[in-house]
Amino acid sequence: MRLNGYAVYVTFAVHSKFQQFAVKQTIKGQEFLIMGKELTTRAQDYAQWYNDLVIKGGLADYSAVRGCMVIKPYGFALWENMRDVLDRMFKDTGHQNAYFPLFVPKSLFEAEEKNAEGFAKECAVVTHYRLKSDPSAKGKLMVDPEAKLEEELVVRPTSEAIIWNTYRDWIQSYRDLPLLINQWANVVRWEMRTRLFLRTAEFLWQEGHTAHATAEEAVSETVQMLDVYATFVEEYMALPVVRGVKTPGERFAGAEDTYCIEALMQDGKALQAGTSHFLGQNFAKAFEVKYLSKENKQEYVWATSWGVSTRLIGALVMAHSDDEGLVLPPRIAPVQVVIVPIFKGDEQKAKIGSRVEQVIQELKSKGIRVKYDDNDNNRPGWKFAEYELKGVPVRMAIGARDLEAGVVEIARRDTKEKATVPLEGVSGYIETLLGTIQGNLFNRARLYREEHTTEVATWDEFVSVLDDKGGFVSAHWDGTPETEEAIKEKTKATIRCIPLNNKQETGKCVLTGKPSPQRVLFARAY
Amino acid sequence: MRLNGYAVYVTFAVHSKFQQFAVKQTIKGQEFLIMGKELTTRAQDYAQWYNDLVIKGGLADYSAVRGCMVIKPYGFALWENMRDVLDRMFKDTGHQNAYFPLFVPKSLFEAEEKNAEGFAKECAVVTHYRLKSDPSAKGKLMVDPEAKLEEELVVRPTSEAIIWNTYRDWIQSYRDLPLLINQWANVVRWEMRTRLFLRTAEFLWQEGHTAHATAEEAVSETVQMLDVYATFVEEYMALPVVRGVKTPGERFAGAEDTYCIEALMQDGKALQAGTSHFLGQNFAKAFEVKYLSKENKQEYVWATSWGVSTRLIGALVMAHSDDEGLVLPPRIAPVQVVIVPIFKGDEQKAKIGSRVEQVIQELKSKGIRVKYDDNDNNRPGWKFAEYELKGVPVRMAIGARDLEAGVVEIARRDTKEKATVPLEGVSGYIETLLGTIQGNLFNRARLYREEHTTEVATWDEFVSVLDDKGGFVSAHWDGTPETEEAIKEKTKATIRCIPLNNKQETGKCVLTGKPSPQRVLFARAY
Repeated sequence: MRLNGYAVYVTFAVHSKFQQFAVKQTIKGQEFLIMGKELTTRAQDYAQWYNDLVIKGGLADYSAVRGCMVIKPYGFALWENMRDVLDRMFKDTGHQNAYFPLFVPKSLFEAEEKNAEGFAKECAVVTHYRLKSDPSAKGKLMVDPEAKLEEELVVRPTSEAIIWNTYRDWIQSYRDLPLLINQWANVVRWEMRTRLFLRTAEFLWQEGHTAHATAEEAVSETVQMLDVYATFVEEYMALPVVRGVKTPGERFAGAEDTYCIEALMQDGKALQAGTSHFLGQNFAKAFEVKYLSKENKQEYVWATSWGVSTRLIGALVMAHSDDEGLVLPPRIAPVQVVIVPIFKGDEQKAKIGSRVEQVIQELKSKGIRVKYDDNDNNRPGWKFAEYELKGVPVRMAIGARDLEAGVVEIARRDTKEKATVPLEGVSGYIETLLGTIQGNLFNRARLYREEHTTEVATWDEFVSVLDDKGGFVSAHWDGTPETEEAIKEKTKATIRCIPLNNKQETGKCVLTGKPSPQRVLFARAY
Repeated sequence: MRLNGYAVYVTFAVHSKFQQFAVKQTIKGQEFLIMGKELTTRAQDYAQWYNDLVIKGGLADYSAVRGCMVIKPYGFALWENMRDVLDRMFKDTGHQNAYFPLFVPKSLFEAEEKNAEGFAKECAVVTHYRLKSDPSAKGKLMVDPEAKLEEELVVRPTSEAIIWNTYRDWIQSYRDLPLLINQWANVVRWEMRTRLFLRTAEFLWQEGHTAHATAEEAVSETVQMLDVYATFVEEYMALPVVRGVKTPGERFAGAEDTYCIEALMQDGKALQAGTSHFLGQNFAKAFEVKYLSKENKQEYVWATSWGVSTRLIGALVMAHSDDEGLVLPPRIAPVQVVIVPIFKGDEQKAKIGSRVEQVIQELKSKGIRVKYDDNDNNRPGWKFAEYELKGVPVRMAIGARDLEAGVVEIARRDTKEKATVPLEGVSGYIETLLGTIQGNLFNRARLYREEHTTEVATWDEFVSVLDDKGGFVSAHWDGTPETEEAIKEKTKATIRCIPLNNKQETGKCVLTGKPSPQRVLFARAY
């Protein structure tokens, strides 16, 4: 096998759950392990391209537990950046963090019937609290049948039940409201078909759970948090979203209304990036959470819940990346700038290093996350490919001759453009460039979405746009769950949302021809 | 019941798992709910005093799940401050965060036999992955017997097994070492007797798991992380610790050596505040983790693991607090300064508010966490008691006359001293005072520890010091596990550690009279 004119040896190492491969490249007699150059392209196999990027880009790995992933350091650093921004936004809107138990006793879990019904089929259940030596197999353990729990514990798929059971003790009077709490936690939903980040049995998320004196206040909280999510996803993840409301059939189990933000991926499929639920008084009634009003009356409180998860990382990968690897938006990239020195011998290395040190300090003082990679074990070419794969927004390369000439080479990850730039003032140049890249990624994604949002009038158009072009299909719907279900069965497309502030225009349902007051957004989705 | 000359009505509200009470105080016809004034004192019942502080101080609450607690917003803010400092220290020493699955398949869990044996008796086990409607009880759910897992999943009590099973894929060559990873996570250990923060079935912690090419490097990592813990606990939590090594009998299951930091609580009992383990090649061998050395040989890697948990919050409460409530060290207190205005009517309120706003901005610009409580619903006296209970290090009170005189009243939580201070420059005064309080708490705790560390020569002395005075007892021990066990059985005291850099002096074992090369530290412990 030959790649770029060099002899290449491909080695396969079979791991427990998947095949990982690395490519050895021999350049001038020296052997390099190059990763990322053997990525599946989007055109070849979009799903495999995604998996390649996640695994080889260092974001996550499969684990020995069915459907559970390992979030690798680079992926976790990305999550930390996202989490920190969101956490700040939650606190700025008056929320406090707390932590509630991982387990929910079955009797609590079933108290809100719709919620319980919605999650029952995917619950991991703890039934015993002890292992013991297996008398029939030396060195092995078995579940101790004498340590059976009187009541089974559900591993939380979401925490409404355990939290609302606690709120009963915390809320007595209108003075205790609003109660604005968020939790960062792991949750478990036993999915049969899993995909790294997009759908895993265990995932990390945040779940806000708030209690209010009035329905109006709860609805306004629900919308506020949807706006927080939309702002975060658009401004930090550079991913435009449609804000909307789910149809009753797509609501969160136990909610009166589910608001959502929907994003579009490069394969034309939609992805629900966050949800915010108005829960009415369903949980207050199930858990008897009442407050004494100013008028001295006992009233049930009103609830919201809202969450985003590590799924957002999947959205990020699919929205911006290309066939060379990840493309990360500067505002949340773990490394925003990588500096690669090109040198022969220690003298050149030291000379470049000492000048670059100044640049690093300047970048750091601007709050820019910079990595200097002067590792001798890898050649510049390997490093270029590696940081391209990892989606570092800006790469600065500097050699001995550049140093003499007082210039550096700056490469953008998003457009792959390179420029020769004066070393003097390069930190300012980079700072501006990071902003430009952030904006470009957003605009590119928005343009893609605009081009892939199609209004259709007939069923034939509906089907052909879905099949040939993909993206959001804006179509009239007669408003019945039966039609929604029929369309889903025929095309696998679902109603992603009824956009907020939707234009009211009468028309005919794309499937049944019955009257419709407005268009809704359909798409095939993750 | 009368308290401070006022009529007091005590109301009891019985909750699911505990009794909570609040005291209503009537002052001049107006009714106040005062909390914290009915705290159990340390002299009355130390254990109850601790529980009162944790619950009424707003740190944590019991939950509906046996042995699991709810960490309330104030307690979680404290944990966030501790976590953020530690996380920075871990990153500064070259560690990266990652995330591994919550579940460990039983076959992996049992791979390292000593570790498995050590934790088997306290494992929560997931056996099923689905619930279904209970045909015999409408609206109820039951575990679906058809959804039994082929292999049971242990909820992680610690993550060595799942992590080392992953490291096998991540480590191939010496270039992959050292691998320095930390995880912030929840873990579950099914304890029969639980206490808020100190011993709960589920708790939050961080666990570092590192892999090294040599034993020396792994030992040096183990000691480095012990030093990180000691620095954190002493400099941020204001709690002096003894650094030492555990006896073989007290080692972590699966470790070759367990290093620890031990702190002393106000009741004379010791508390293990953090541990750092040298794991040798035990996990590398159990999970076949080898690397290709520079000499081109396949070698097993060397391991460490180290952790601290929400238990530290229990230590913090017990080390510094008093009969009036929590006493929090400024460096990690969620609120460092509370400002309470004393006013009649909106005009005074506005006047004080506008002047105080300047002080708040000054404090914030110094990075000081400040809260301004001008809530009309509560009187100043209530607020004073509330923030005393919550352990806010500095309270600033300012009334209309103070404003005219250009002074404020500053009260320290640690010594309860009050001072009248010029308003001009008060932020600088407070900044200095916070440092003084931090130092005073540490010195007070160190003095207490010094006074409660006793060298004994005879068995009678040993027993009487333990019973009458408490604290650390420094005594000779013959080095055998049998004697260690006998002492534990007779007195409930354990060997907390063999201090690092321990003085070598020969003597006779306090129990058996056999020769001993050095003294070790005994104590009764949490």
